[in-house]
Parts: sequence; C-alpha cells; structure tokens
Amino acid sequence: MTTPGTLQRYPKGVLDMHQEKVVSLNPEDRLIKSCLGEEVDRPPVWLMRQAGRYLPEYREVRKEVSFLELCRDVDRAVTVSLQPIDLVGSEAVILFQDIFTPVPGMGMALDFAPGPVMENPIRSLADVERLGVPDSRDSVPFVFEIIRVLRRELASRKIPLLGFAGAPFTLAAYMVEGRGSKDFALLKRMLHREPDILRALLRKLTDMTVDYLEAQIEAGAQVVQIFDTWAGLLSADLYREWVLPIHQEIAKRIQHGKAPLILYVNNGAHVVAEMAESGADVISLDWRASLGGAASRFGQQVSLQGNLDPTALAAPEKEIASMVHRLAEEGAAARGHIMNLGHGCLPDTPVEGVRAFIEAVQSLA
Amino acid sequence: MTTPGTLQRYPKGVLDMHQEKVVSLNPEDRLIKSCLGEEVDRPPVWLMRQAGRYLPEYREVRKEVSFLELCRDVDRAVTVSLQPIDLVGSEAVILFQDIFTPVPGMGMALDFAPGPVMENPIRSLADVERLGVPDSRDSVPFVFEIIRVLRRELASRKIPLLGFAGAPFTLAAYMVEGRGSKDFALLKRMLHREPDILRALLRKLTDMTVDYLEAQIEAGAQVVQIFDTWAGLLSADLYREWVLPIHQEIAKRIQHGKAPLILYVNNGAHVVAEMAESGADVISLDWRASLGGAASRFGQQVSLQGNLDPTALAAPEKEIASMVHRLAEEGAAARGHIMNLGHGCLPDTPVEGVRAFIEAVQSLA
Repeated sequence: MTTPGTLQRYPKGVLDMHQEKVVSLNPEDRLIKSCLGEEVDRPPVWLMRQAGRYLPEYREVRKEVSFLELCRDVDRAVTVSLQPIDLVGSEAVILFQDIFTPVPGMGMALDFAPGPVMENPIRSLADVERLGVPDSRDSVPFVFEIIRVLRRELASRKIPLLGFAGAPFTLAAYMVEGRGSKDFALLKRMLHREPDILRALLRKLTDMTVDYLEAQIEAGAQVVQIFDTWAGLLSADLYREWVLPIHQEIAKRIQHGKAPLILYVNNGAHVVAEMAESGADVISLDWRASLGGAASRFGQQVSLQGNLDPTALAAPEKEIASMVHRLAEEGAAARGHIMNLGHGCLPDTPVEGVRAFIEAVQSLA
Repeated sequence: MTTPGTLQRYPKGVLDMHQEKVVSLNPEDRLIKSCLGEEVDRPPVWLMRQAGRYLPEYREVRKEVSFLELCRDVDRAVTVSLQPIDLVGSEAVILFQDIFTPVPGMGMALDFAPGPVMENPIRSLADVERLGVPDSRDSVPFVFEIIRVLRRELASRKIPLLGFAGAPFTLAAYMVEGRGSKDFALLKRMLHREPDILRALLRKLTDMTVDYLEAQIEAGAQVVQIFDTWAGLLSADLYREWVLPIHQEIAKRIQHGKAPLILYVNNGAHVVAEMAESGADVISLDWRASLGGAASRFGQQVSLQGNLDPTALAAPEKEIASMVHRLAEEGAAARGHIMNLGHGCLPDTPVEGVRAFIEAVQSLA
C-alpha cells in the first residue's frame, strides 16, 4: 500500500498518480512511518512540552506536588503525560520527566530553584572521576514504570509513546556551569582551557545516555528523542568537534532499528547540516531554521520535525491554520515530516491555539 | 594606491600581483575603507562592548556613579570610551552609551534593575500615540557633547569614532514586553494579534532612530552601527516582513555616504541573507554564523564584521591567534572585513585574551 521513498507525498494529486490512496493510518503507524521516511496520509502531530503549565488540568496536578515529586510519582506522571491526548487532541504521548532525572544517580546532587542548580559543579578531572554510571533501571526505576503504564494505556488507542533524554552536551553544560546561564562562559572556558575534563565528562554522560535510552526502549518507548538545549551555543566548527560525534555515537549504539531516534537542537539553525549527519532518523528544527530549506537540502537523508514558533500559537486560529498549511507544504519535500513546534510549548500559550494547531494538521488529510 | 573591488586583498601574494603594496594605513582609513570595500593592508579591529566591566579601570570609574549617570556624565563617558585604546590596543572607539538613551525623551520612563524595566509598557495604540519624537539634539544633548569631545581627542591619533543606536525592533521589544525576556511572548502576541499597534510603534522608533543617528554623524561619528539584539528571535519569514524594511529605511534615510553603516543582529545566523539586503555597508555577524559562508555568498555586496565567540577570549593566547588567522582567511573572500567579536565582550573576559586577540590581528599585516 505504501511507496517508500516517494517525495511530495501529502498533496492528493501525487497520491492519485499512483492510482491508489494511502489508507487512513492510525497515529502509531503514522508517526513511525514518518520517522522512517515511509509513505503516510498526512503528517503526524504532537508538541514538545505538550504536558505543561499552559494546561489548567496540568496546573491542578502540579499544585499538589513539587516538580521533582511529580517526576517520581508514577500515577501523577502518567496522568499529566496523557492529558494532551484528550485535552488538545495530540497524536503522541511523550513521557513526562525532566532531562536531569538520571543525573543525581551518577552522584551529582542538584536542586531546582526553579531552574536546575548543581550543588558541586564539575571543576576538575577528579570531580568527573567521582561520577558513576549506574544502570538506570536501578537508579531511576520509576521512569520505566511510567513508560510501562503509559504503553498499556495507549496500546489499544494506537497512540505512540516517545521516550527522551537530555543530550550529554546539555547536561554537561549545567554540570560545569552549575546552573542555567545566558552565555555559559565557564563551560566554554573549560572547553578552551581544560578540554580533557570536558571530554571525560561527556564520555561518562554519553554512556549514561545510551543506557538510559535503551532502558526506555526496552520498557516500551516506541520513538526516542534527544534534547540538546545548549549545543546551539557553539559555533558550527565547535559543534562539529564537540557535539556531532556524541550524537553519532548515541545513534549507533542505541541500535535505532528498534525505535526511531529524533534529535532536537535548540537554537540550532546554524547546525542543521551537522544535525543531518548525526545518524538520527529525524531532526527536529528550531523555529529559526528554514523547514523548506532543510527539506530540500537534507530531506532525502532524514525526516524532519517542526517547526512553528511556539509564540505563534497566540495568533488567531485562521492564521495558525495558514501557518500549518505552509509548514506542510515545506515539509512535503522531505521523506517524512512530523508537525511540531520549534521549541517547547510556553506556559502562557492559549489552549485554543494548541487545539487550532492540531486540528489544522488533522484537516490536511 | 588602492584597487577597489579586488577580492582576496590581504594575502601578500595577491597584492604582489598588482606590483605594488598597500602602504600601511592609519586606523581611521583602514576602518572606513574596510566598510566601503576598498583595499586595505589588513583588517581593522575593535570589539563590541570593549569599554566594559572586564576592564578594572572601567570598574573603577563605574564605582563612582550609576550606569545611567555614567551615560550622562560627559567626562566619565569620554574616559571609559577611550580606555580600550591604551589598555588593550583597540583601533576604534565607540561612543559609550546605552541603547535606551533616547527612549525616555519620547515619554517612556524606564529604570535599570539591572536590566531595563519600562514603567508603563506599550499595550494600546493610545500608548503609542502618546510617544513623542523630539529632536535628540535637545532631548539628549550630552550624547553629542561626548561625541564632539571624543573626536577632538581622537583626530590627531587618527583613531576612528563609531556612533550607534539600538534598532527599532529591539527597542520596541522591550517597550512592549516591559523588560528583557527569554521568549518575548507578549511582543510576539502583539505581532500576531495586534499588528497595527506594533507597526505604529516601529514607525515612531524608526523616525527617532534616523534622527538620532544623523545627529551623531553631524557631531562627528565617522561610522554608525545599529544593534538589533532581539530581531534574531523572529523566523526568517517574520524578520523579512517586520525587520528588514526598517533596516532598509534607516540605511536609505541616513544617507550613509556620509558615514558607513554597520548592522549587527544578535543570534541572526538564520537571517544573514536578509541582513545583506539591508543597505548597510557592513553586516556584523553573530559567532554562530559562518564568516566564510557569508563572505562567499554576500561578500561582494557588503563588508563583514566579526565574529569570534566572546567566550573564546578565555582560550590560551596561541589558540586565540590561530582563531584570528582562520577568521582572517575566511573574511578575505569579502570586499572588506572588520575583525571583531560575534557579540559584546563579556564581564569575565580575561584582559590578556582581549589583548591577544587585537595583537593577533595587528600581526596579520
């Protein structure tokens, strides 16, 4: 029924040329086929940080517990993970969790104030050597329990489940800097003056991340996404030296035949070519990147995800629909396109804007 | 003596082909010729935010007065403007001032806490209508007095003087949002839902900026730079719609035959093509942008400025020198290249790193 490798798959005319229509797919098949570049009826849709503060129902749950407690509370984490399905019509669920979840288990204490703050930032090779790489199945068992419960809930509805991890460079950025920063000057100072310390840290974080993603896939995650929030702070040259090899190693080691891999680099419009070389099945674009440009340059190599500016969800619904149409046209030049934002959903996003976005995608069929 | 339009001007071999060497230029000629794409002996060098907290001598002056007082105190502002000449060897002086200097005169009160905070952010067309566009010669006379004193000090040393202004979009961003922000969601909400208010605000700010830059040129600024700190928050499509026409209008109206115009867009690696269409003589690149890529794509149209990552000034001096060599090679494909950072100098930058950067450029000759 499908014709893998056909470009320009969504416009009706092209499908008609094949004398057949792709039957309407369920959300699970639509997402996985899009990741792998197989033919689909229309782009699947979900939103980064779709379980979040913009939803009143999320804020209700969040009132009862701290953010860290919510991450470790299997019932509540399952509840908020599932909320976007019925409340806004999202077609995929992503595990509710924090990118730092596996870090304390390595021996690195941190707190949220409200951003992450490391108790003892990494300053020496000895600091790195003290870090362990425990089996995440033992150190954060609740993550896999949440995944198992979610899969049971979702299987009958044919809704796909995504797992995720923070990328090693991003975790290292916080672990060296000690907290979030505009410039990450301490991190970059280490990169230039004490590169061996940073390399050793990235080495351990890469091992940890591979294990953590593999355990998520084992537990039932059907697709996994790496979030590299801070790699976009590097020039393309430094990104190629420090970040690309890590992504490539992760892609190779998690054997993503089992679960497609999506790579998101925040503020990464200048490293789209490097992202396309990562070995990920899908690259998820920041809203500053040109989706059409990426589709024509790299769309035969990788599928694309994105990339509406989350603040555009405050636009009138008609305007949101026209932006979705435009993205669908641009994305259609790639082997696969997953409709999404170019960044996580913001706390003050109107819920009706999120619904309008999803409905506009669903009416593309 | 010069051969305008010759590309690849710095490597000795090319100059030898013309059977003549460009005589060693003074800093004034070197900067202005580089802006206009005329032949020079080597790239000129200065640093954005070169008068700043990384210099102990600046911190000494700053101890005695608040930041706002320093901007209005002609003697002290002249002192800190000149510091980078003797302390680190910079080859140009930029007026010490804040991008918000002309804003209170429009009727928009603001404070620093420490970032800018607007007392009454713009929320309606009436708020915009209340803003005036006074002659900046009357509203902020100290700016032009600082420029006149600096020119007298610098003329005999043949050191060029730059004036500058915040770009209308960036000023509007703060005036709507009320303060700095990671996402500027209120600003973007206005852009999507109440575009007429934002257009009216940008209209007034453009008139104000043109007047302000013209007055600086009259007072003695030999080159002027526009800083668009927040325009890089827009996708390329929205940038083209909302920002590019403003830059083009400014370039046209300030008649930059009198003083070359430099345009800097922070985090603007995705809009370099649009920057090149602005009508500015020089586009100043964020460190994420590829200098070599911009030189080969747009280097015959515009000169380039930049673009070392300011955090790289923490690198060992030898490494800084090799980064400078690489930038010089990439920039040599453009009609002109001004060596600079890709962002303002950061407070914790080592002074010796700044010196190493400038010395490496000076030894390129």
